[in-house]
Amino acid sequence: MTLSIVDLAEIRAVATEELVFTAVRDALVAHAEGRTQLPPPIALVFPEAGGDCHVKAGQLAGAPYFGVKVATGFYRNAERGLPSNSGLILVLDATTGVPAAVLADEGWLTAWRTAAAGALVTHALTPPDVDEVGVLGTGLQARLQVEWLHALRPLARVRIWGRRAEAARRVCDELPLDARPATLEEAAGSACVITATPSTTPLAPASAFAGALHVTGIGTDLPGKGELPPSLFPGAVVVTDDHAQCLDHGDFGNAVRAGVVGSEVDVPAGVVLRDGVERPAGRTIADLTGLGVADAAVASAVFTALSR
Amino acid sequence: MTLSIVDLAEIRAVATEELVFTAVRDALVAHAEGRTQLPPPIALVFPEAGGDCHVKAGQLAGAPYFGVKVATGFYRNAERGLPSNSGLILVLDATTGVPAAVLADEGWLTAWRTAAAGALVTHALTPPDVDEVGVLGTGLQARLQVEWLHALRPLARVRIWGRRAEAARRVCDELPLDARPATLEEAAGSACVITATPSTTPLAPASAFAGALHVTGIGTDLPGKGELPPSLFPGAVVVTDDHAQCLDHGDFGNAVRAGVVGSEVDVPAGVVLRDGVERPAGRTIADLTGLGVADAAVASAVFTALSR
Repeated sequence: MTLSIVDLAEIRAVATEELVFTAVRDALVAHAEGRTQLPPPIALVFPEAGGDCHVKAGQLAGAPYFGVKVATGFYRNAERGLPSNSGLILVLDATTGVPAAVLADEGWLTAWRTAAAGALVTHALTPPDVDEVGVLGTGLQARLQVEWLHALRPLARVRIWGRRAEAARRVCDELPLDARPATLEEAAGSACVITATPSTTPLAPASAFAGALHVTGIGTDLPGKGELPPSLFPGAVVVTDDHAQCLDHGDFGNAVRAGVVGSEVDVPAGVVLRDGVERPAGRTIADLTGLGVADAAVASAVFTALSR
Repeated sequence: MTLSIVDLAEIRAVATEELVFTAVRDALVAHAEGRTQLPPPIALVFPEAGGDCHVKAGQLAGAPYFGVKVATGFYRNAERGLPSNSGLILVLDATTGVPAAVLADEGWLTAWRTAAAGALVTHALTPPDVDEVGVLGTGLQARLQVEWLHALRPLARVRIWGRRAEAARRVCDELPLDARPATLEEAAGSACVITATPSTTPLAPASAFAGALHVTGIGTDLPGKGELPPSLFPGAVVVTDDHAQCLDHGDFGNAVRAGVVGSEVDVPAGVVLRDGVERPAGRTIADLTGLGVADAAVASAVFTALSR
């Protein structure tokens, strides 16, 4: 077997923004067109160790490779001086089933595809003249969502709110932009708002988002989470990366369960990226829960580039 | 990351019969006692390439490692001079979630755990004085089931039936035993019978098994398969490796759906191995569909042995 382990340095050398943007865009469009396989993931839990393991597989029709992603979160690893999250993506040949490579990406491909999906959809749904963005959240994705969006449209002004002021300050310092810590009202009131937190309750009342023409929520990756108030949804155009997944554990699902919006009103993100959008009169909301097919598409593109 | 790829030669060096028997026995007992995690597998299909991919994860409480197995079958690979089946088992640390190794086992750990589970259960359920076995099937498992059973109890007489006489002859030649090709009636009429075929219809009518005190069926690994006639089940003691899995796609499930036996009559194989059995008056039937937890247990034991 010629299976090889590809380390992060090798992955970084080929996984350019362009490669990731293209792969994620293709994955979202293909998913909207029914040209993907995205079976339900496998979950294992380790109560004694405070850990969990998720296995996701996905396939994009026509891609030369498909992927199986294994991601773990063990939340007492810090006591051992280890990062909480580990994982890898196994790349397999879609014509022969033969395992081709293990991408030991240390979680970065997931981070990049999440950033790329958010940036693509946020850019598509935000009016072209908007150059300010408000961010709720101070984690890795708070920074990456801004950086990747800035690659699609130059941002003149970024306002970041977090529960911890010093974390907001740190993210602002890391961004090569006019980025400043802000109050919740300032950040949520921007013309374009991105939420990127692990919150399980709405971050702010709907009134705080009064100035937002577009809101992208990317934090709801698992059941039980929620960032946006359900009352933000009535009258908005709702865009989802996966209808069933967003119903199950996205903010869209929370709004449907709250009874304020119908369960069939959402538009697939891939349709928005493929066809563009006529700017609606009301607000747009993108609920992005993370697409296993995007992992597979990025992994296939990375390994294809490495094989050249 | 210190992730390493372990090849088949390295695996063979530590995966002794004793190691595999112990790991599989522990897995079956733990599974019967509810000390395992065995979430539903992931399946992908590749109609254009004539392929499929199955991902199974399992965990045995207390084992130092857990496993994620990826197995593919691409049935046009022969045209390319490649084997149809590929796969590997990813071993992860159950305390930290960190990937520890890729066991590039070329499917052998699955073959061995299947042989060990069959041999353990067949041995436990067959009266001690029986030293003859009839086998229906001529594939790899037909040979391995006999070899691994022979390691637990010396076999004096093996009778093998297959649809293709030359295949039965070949298996007999490979066995260092008194093994001879036989008619379906001779093989199915042995005191101990093992079925190991990919059949989707019963291999013989119940009357052909009249002389069988015990029957082990190991071929029903996927929905749509079936080896044993439902009418063999009434009055028999039925042993299953996993209740839900055997109901879903084992011969036990076929018999339940045929309405000849209740859906709750089965006894867990792990209980039989743990407690032994008083030989019942009637026939015993073991329906073994293959346990992902056995993969995890064997992978953990192999990697533990390699790490010493």
